[in-house]
Amino acid sequence: MTDKKISVCVLGGGSFGTTLAGLMAARGVPVTLWLRDEKVAAEIAGEHENKRYMPGFKLDARLVVTTDMHAAVAAADMVFLAIPSSAFRSVLHDIGPQLAGKDVISTTKGIEQPGFLMMSDIAGQEAPGARIAVLSGPNLAKEIATGELTATVVASEDQALCSRVQAVLGSRRLRVYASQDKYGVELGGALKNVYAIISGMAAALGMGENTKSMLITRSLAEMSRFAVHMGASPMTFLGLAGVGDLIVTCMSPLSRNYQVGFALGQGHTLDESVAQLGQVAEGVNTLKVLKQKSDEEGVYMPLVTGLHAILFEQQPLDAVIGRLMSAEQKDDVEFSAFMSCTPLEKE
Amino acid sequence: MTDKKISVCVLGGGSFGTTLAGLMAARGVPVTLWLRDEKVAAEIAGEHENKRYMPGFKLDARLVVTTDMHAAVAAADMVFLAIPSSAFRSVLHDIGPQLAGKDVISTTKGIEQPGFLMMSDIAGQEAPGARIAVLSGPNLAKEIATGELTATVVASEDQALCSRVQAVLGSRRLRVYASQDKYGVELGGALKNVYAIISGMAAALGMGENTKSMLITRSLAEMSRFAVHMGASPMTFLGLAGVGDLIVTCMSPLSRNYQVGFALGQGHTLDESVAQLGQVAEGVNTLKVLKQKSDEEGVYMPLVTGLHAILFEQQPLDAVIGRLMSAEQKDDVEFSAFMSCTPLEKE
Repeated sequence: MTDKKISVCVLGGGSFGTTLAGLMAARGVPVTLWLRDEKVAAEIAGEHENKRYMPGFKLDARLVVTTDMHAAVAAADMVFLAIPSSAFRSVLHDIGPQLAGKDVISTTKGIEQPGFLMMSDIAGQEAPGARIAVLSGPNLAKEIATGELTATVVASEDQALCSRVQAVLGSRRLRVYASQDKYGVELGGALKNVYAIISGMAAALGMGENTKSMLITRSLAEMSRFAVHMGASPMTFLGLAGVGDLIVTCMSPLSRNYQVGFALGQGHTLDESVAQLGQVAEGVNTLKVLKQKSDEEGVYMPLVTGLHAILFEQQPLDAVIGRLMSAEQKDDVEFSAFMSCTPLEKE
Repeated sequence: MTDKKISVCVLGGGSFGTTLAGLMAARGVPVTLWLRDEKVAAEIAGEHENKRYMPGFKLDARLVVTTDMHAAVAAADMVFLAIPSSAFRSVLHDIGPQLAGKDVISTTKGIEQPGFLMMSDIAGQEAPGARIAVLSGPNLAKEIATGELTATVVASEDQALCSRVQAVLGSRRLRVYASQDKYGVELGGALKNVYAIISGMAAALGMGENTKSMLITRSLAEMSRFAVHMGASPMTFLGLAGVGDLIVTCMSPLSRNYQVGFALGQGHTLDESVAQLGQVAEGVNTLKVLKQKSDEEGVYMPLVTGLHAILFEQQPLDAVIGRLMSAEQKDDVEFSAFMSCTPLEKE
């Protein structure tokens, strides 16, 4: 796409970071993948495979791997962040000054408390001199790695930055769409995890297609309502990072959030469900943060309130579902009451 | 909900009409089900079961069944239309004058040519004295019949009419939401069948979750763009009759449209696919109508254009998919370029 090659660095050797790095390397982009674990780094360097997170996937031999974060960042024009939300601030704090003048793209989903901060907010605080974008969408890493046709969204107010990311990352198999609503795209990526728990629960309770579809629709309305209240564009939720990511997360039994929900629906407690899974699902943390914020802001979120009652207020599943169902039947998309929309002139 | 009982008549003894009639009868609403076939009518009257369309489902013994349409309509305050789109105008023509002053609710999906008319438009022409609403949503009849929690939308500019339908039809298991966007709700119900064909095709081609989710998202953007151009509210497509119905139709392998698409994706011709199914899928007709209308109106619909090329212009699947994929990567929800949206003041 461009003659002058952009040097890329990907921070984080989990499934998503490894996939992105491998993909760009295969397209001839100079890429360095940084990860903390010496053993995994040696394995990737020697065998071109990340056996821990992406077993069975061959990585392009041109992919450079390192455990020296500062050197990797120093040599790069564009830095992708694919590190867990729990480590996000400390890593950014460490390299913040180095990022001045560089393109920084966060792929991490999560909300930091206190402050209700998105990952890009943290990046902005720790690396004030960087140009910041976020990447989100219906993107199962393994499907990207196997070359399944995938679409994703890069979002930033800086349109030139979006174009550079499209040039470096986009291909016939990975379509990269641009958006200016960074906050909405990031919020969609974080909130959907809560609704994936609800979908897993519905599946465990044997709910039919009508019910699942209703739940996804009401979830979309609820997350849009909250996001719009917080300043996001409602149109983002009609797009890949909104409804697209919600569908893939709520429909895929592989997601950790869905699995926690499934265990809850089978009658297990939250502790038991998390123990079964062996790790905490991001949606459980997001639920707490979201319940608190929606209470503070006075945004009506019956699904969040109901799930919070089940998980943290010892209320039985049946009672909560009964209460949700006996609510008055009102308007479809009551969300529309919050918006004024008018079609623009035809092209 | 109300002391004065509304008398209901349901025209059409297919799976949806039978289910609605049975449901209301079970709630104590006086209901007469009209159908053409004497044998099926006698069976329902004698055995309380519609063995042809709803085998295994017991109908409430209070449900009255008849083959005398005029008598059934004459005795009713509210008439539900659950007849095939191909018979819609002739039935309405027959009873039009009788419907004056009555509530008429169409559940039939389809578009009549010439004129690009919705079923409610036909009802308005043939029964100008009736009060007209439509009913649509993620509503598999068999799941409603088994009591799966289901949500549906009743839409009419006449809010009192919507309230009466909510009172007669709504229950703890079937949630009836109101909308004023009759046209958008009806258009959503008709257009989704086209995109279900595409989803079936994607499944046959072994496409992954990322791809399926991308297709549903782009389908939603495309159908919304067309509908908004035609005068519908964009908010309807965030609701049950928009994204809700689209999800259930695109995800359910039982839908006829999905099955035609699946056969096409396996490399069969349209004729072979329809022959396998034993009947024409509604989406195939809707596709033709929609292609013509979007060309006339100059609305950009790449998925409709691509599917039309495969089905009616003898273009190979691979070439069409390749063309769709090599389109320039632009903005997410380019649909948003057609709308101006601003949040209203907080409550």
